[in-house]
Amino acid sequence: MKSGLKMRNPQWQVAAFPNGPVSLSDFFWAEPSVPSLGNEEVRVRNIYLSLDPANRMWISGEATYLPVLKIGDVMRGGAIGIVEESRNPRFEVGEFVSGLLGWQVYYTGNGRGLAKISRIDGIPLLAYHGVLGAVGLTAYFGLLDIGRPQPGETLLVSAAAGAVGSLVGQIGKIKGCNVVGLAGTADKCRWLLEELHFDAAINYRSGSFPAALERSCADGVDVYFDNVGGEILNAALGRINRKGRIVICGLISQYNAATPAHPLSNLSRFLIQRARMEAFIVIDYLPRAKEALLQLTEWLLEGRLKYRVDVVQGLERAPQALNKLFDGSNQGKLVVEISQPPC
Amino acid sequence: MKSGLKMRNPQWQVAAFPNGPVSLSDFFWAEPSVPSLGNEEVRVRNIYLSLDPANRMWISGEATYLPVLKIGDVMRGGAIGIVEESRNPRFEVGEFVSGLLGWQVYYTGNGRGLAKISRIDGIPLLAYHGVLGAVGLTAYFGLLDIGRPQPGETLLVSAAAGAVGSLVGQIGKIKGCNVVGLAGTADKCRWLLEELHFDAAINYRSGSFPAALERSCADGVDVYFDNVGGEILNAALGRINRKGRIVICGLISQYNAATPAHPLSNLSRFLIQRARMEAFIVIDYLPRAKEALLQLTEWLLEGRLKYRVDVVQGLERAPQALNKLFDGSNQGKLVVEISQPPC
Repeated sequence: MKSGLKMRNPQWQVAAFPNGPVSLSDFFWAEPSVPSLGNEEVRVRNIYLSLDPANRMWISGEATYLPVLKIGDVMRGGAIGIVEESRNPRFEVGEFVSGLLGWQVYYTGNGRGLAKISRIDGIPLLAYHGVLGAVGLTAYFGLLDIGRPQPGETLLVSAAAGAVGSLVGQIGKIKGCNVVGLAGTADKCRWLLEELHFDAAINYRSGSFPAALERSCADGVDVYFDNVGGEILNAALGRINRKGRIVICGLISQYNAATPAHPLSNLSRFLIQRARMEAFIVIDYLPRAKEALLQLTEWLLEGRLKYRVDVVQGLERAPQALNKLFDGSNQGKLVVEISQPPC
Repeated sequence: MKSGLKMRNPQWQVAAFPNGPVSLSDFFWAEPSVPSLGNEEVRVRNIYLSLDPANRMWISGEATYLPVLKIGDVMRGGAIGIVEESRNPRFEVGEFVSGLLGWQVYYTGNGRGLAKISRIDGIPLLAYHGVLGAVGLTAYFGLLDIGRPQPGETLLVSAAAGAVGSLVGQIGKIKGCNVVGLAGTADKCRWLLEELHFDAAINYRSGSFPAALERSCADGVDVYFDNVGGEILNAALGRINRKGRIVICGLISQYNAATPAHPLSNLSRFLIQRARMEAFIVIDYLPRAKEALLQLTEWLLEGRLKYRVDVVQGLERAPQALNKLFDGSNQGKLVVEISQPPC
């Protein structure tokens, strides 16, 4: 894109703060013109938009760990894009960047908070939304820094076929754990067992879930990596071991506020077992990103970390696609392709 | 008592595993004869029996952090007693000991797990059930080791007029915190404010509780020391600060299993604030008891720690007295006087 042309910037703006599942009417499609570039500013064409459970939290209208989004704001979202124009010496045209570029085709701004992507031969751009992006950092620091698994311990992971959960389980295997994954379909469970070599995978929607949990975690649960909260968190509490650690990464079952919170009736076991439950947000670990990315890249190139990507075509489909995270119909990291990726 | 005499050992045995509040029929009064002393054994006459919320957990019939009590077992309980007879070189007649001596007049056994009390001039024997006993260790390690309060932080304490809670708040004041106590009567709140110099005290049974909590913890809660669980835990979660710490010391509202668990609807705040919730059991800290007792003794002798004791006369009243912990009618550390204390 050249300056001066009257280019449009299609985008999704926040139209309402939904209570239950997200619907199309919670967003407003707009196509303002692209502003001309100010001093020190950079223009990025967004390529891949990452859809994450946290997106749902950001449009709750309530305070989170980031400023509250207001009605009319461009919807917040992490994306990967390519610099197409720059009046900022930090960025050169043709560089790939990632950050909170938003649900829009063009980002125009001072580039603060954007990270440059140093591409490595043989690693596709999409991996930087997954293993080598926030997802990878989340799995790495959440499991190793908060969960601190030891060889031989049992690691239980919820949403185990999801982007974060599948990495957590694989890192757990690398660390010598007995890894048990929870997922919502037989297909996902098969993937965990056959492709990712989890020790066990349980369909939490099947009637035999409690019995299967007891069988697969016969020696109890030492680390529970939680992405969902609610009833499954309570079931995991019911198996937690002495000095067990519960990593609260997400509470996806609770983000649609219409769902009532589940009573944690097993908190007494938490007490008796002197367990620890700790939450974290990946942005706190950004200063330590390099250490994780080096290790994750090494594992990735060695073929020890596998991942799946679920690419939805077209920014206009982002609102509906977001619900796939909550109804469990996505298969791997959910990404919206906003514009043509490089070949 | 001299060996050979046919002495009786009045005692309460477990008769049933209650579901709701404890009633007299859950215990069985027996008066077997005192057994003669075996090799390496010691006989202790119990003086003060400590009643603690954990007692309720021990007769749930379920696994806790101690072996399950069976029907017919002498009810487990911490007590202070005096050695009256000894065939164990570790113990001399006339020494005071504390430990799980049971709900009985005479303990007869190998003395394993019993601790000797080194009495200090000016400190009454009852203090060894409170500040200088398990209660003091619980408050000290729970607050300082798990809660890690910093000067200027807000410390919220539930059951703040209880034996543990009142110490936690006073230690918090010594450490420079803004201390807010929760208690169930106006009288208890007055004691916290006027005698213990808490910064605020809130009657959680009053209708203005949520507003009062918000006002007293205007800058949020950095450390929440929880003795109760349930609804109050949830309210505290709703005010927890960034990197806040929740010390799970007890869940007294949940021990009467008939009470359904309260949904923790504010767990999303826990996540957003990257909080930590950690449980502990004081017995894990026994190897470090000395460090705490030295400090607690110093503070006690300096007049910086105050406590109240609620003494019930007669072992036969122990079952009913236990319920005082759950209906909130006790005033300070609840103790049963089993036999004549030394003058």
